[in-house]
Amino acid sequence: MNRDALFQDEAARLGYSFDGEIKIGGNYVPLLRDGHQVYISGQIPRVGDTVVVTGTAGAETSLSQAQTAAQVCAMRALALLQRTLGSLEKVRAILRITVYVQSAPAFTQQSEVADGASEILFKILGQAGAHTRTSVGVLQLPKNATVEVDLIASVE
Amino acid sequence: MNRDALFQDEAARLGYSFDGEIKIGGNYVPLLRDGHQVYISGQIPRVGDTVVVTGTAGAETSLSQAQTAAQVCAMRALALLQRTLGSLEKVRAILRITVYVQSAPAFTQQSEVADGASEILFKILGQAGAHTRTSVGVLQLPKNATVEVDLIASVE
Amino acid sequence: MNRDALFQDEAARLGYSFDGEIKIGGNYVPLLRDGHQVYISGQIPRVGDTVVVTGTAGAETSLSQAQTAAQVCAMRALALLQRTLGSLEKVRAILRITVYVQSAPAFTQQSEVADGASEILFKILGQAGAHTRTSVGVLQLPKNATVEVDLIASVE
Repeated sequence: MNRDALFQDEAARLGYSFDGEIKIGGNYVPLLRDGHQVYISGQIPRVGDTVVVTGTAGAETSLSQAQTAAQVCAMRALALLQRTLGSLEKVRAILRITVYVQSAPAFTQQSEVADGASEILFKILGQAGAHTRTSVGVLQLPKNATVEVDLIASVE
Repeated sequence: MNRDALFQDEAARLGYSFDGEIKIGGNYVPLLRDGHQVYISGQIPRVGDTVVVTGTAGAETSLSQAQTAAQVCAMRALALLQRTLGSLEKVRAILRITVYVQSAPAFTQQSEVADGASEILFKILGQAGAHTRTSVGVLQLPKNATVEVDLIASVE
Repeated sequence: MNRDALFQDEAARLGYSFDGEIKIGGNYVPLLRDGHQVYISGQIPRVGDTVVVTGTAGAETSLSQAQTAAQVCAMRALALLQRTLGSLEKVRAILRITVYVQSAPAFTQQSEVADGASEILFKILGQAGAHTRTSVGVLQLPKNATVEVDLIASVE
């Protein structure tokens, strides 16, 4: 099963479509290529016009919901790569993901939240989904999103 | 009008001079080049010895003031590029900016604050100012700055 | 004295050994190489199974303790580079470090905390330890760590 089919499977499992426009919230671009490196802007868990997971992890938002948020962010990033490259088969490596988690003061499971994004990358890209990662707990995110993920990919 | 002249125009509009030393707050360098990529350290809205916008966005600092802070941070980054390259005409692309906004718990307009930095990049660099962006709301920043911006540029 | 010997000296001064496995907290890799660039995952001040500095800088954790935390994070990053490259002599430059400091609301000395990491890089790598830096104050970090540091290196 190739990566693009795996991507469709994950989208179906999450119950979200990533076929429409990937909206961004300001005056910039979602993705920029520099040689074989592709930079992707910070993705919040927005599907269409709706941010599907909002609120503070460890307070009004559960660990499980925050992990789903991280998965949706990763799916958006992959959707952007897929459109630009034609296929996810052209991804060689994910060099870095940074996972920002809107956190309650006592919430220290940012790594566990980020595992949601990591899992998506490994499931869909296989060994090319191996990545370095930084997870931090921030006070707030655009549009009250629970998670924001950006990444740098190495591509063919 | 070339980019260096546009830069002077923006500095005049903001009412700040970026001709002096660009001070940084510790034991590191403001800028480092690796091939055609230039990494720029996190810039706070400091002009000379003064951090011109401080405090928490959404509490003691307004959205408009925070946007000005983001503009000053972007101008500092461009000033550093201009000095190193001789001219801003040598910038090919801004690969990534990360915008950290000192935020009140209920303040969710980090993207709108970051638009201040994005606007400066587009105004001065034109199409070369297109960039990917990540905006997050943090609890605190060095010297109580309202905004901090770092970036990676691709240059000739 | 070469860099690997300087590394051992610093480890001895800190009183920690970095010879064991460098544990990470999730489903990702500690380090990834892309041509001459090496990305290193966010490092918390963990030695073996213990996070040696936890808590909020400016509240239950002092500036000095937070600086030690930043030093341990930098040592872990260097230990990872040393293992992968065979020797720290092969590091050409540290392009970027990002230093996340778990901060009390009124704590604005993130740059001073980050100086702990910068100092280690300069001491051990000399001129190759020059780096760009971003320091921010975040609400929380994985496992209640006081500091997290990630970096990108340029290597032979």
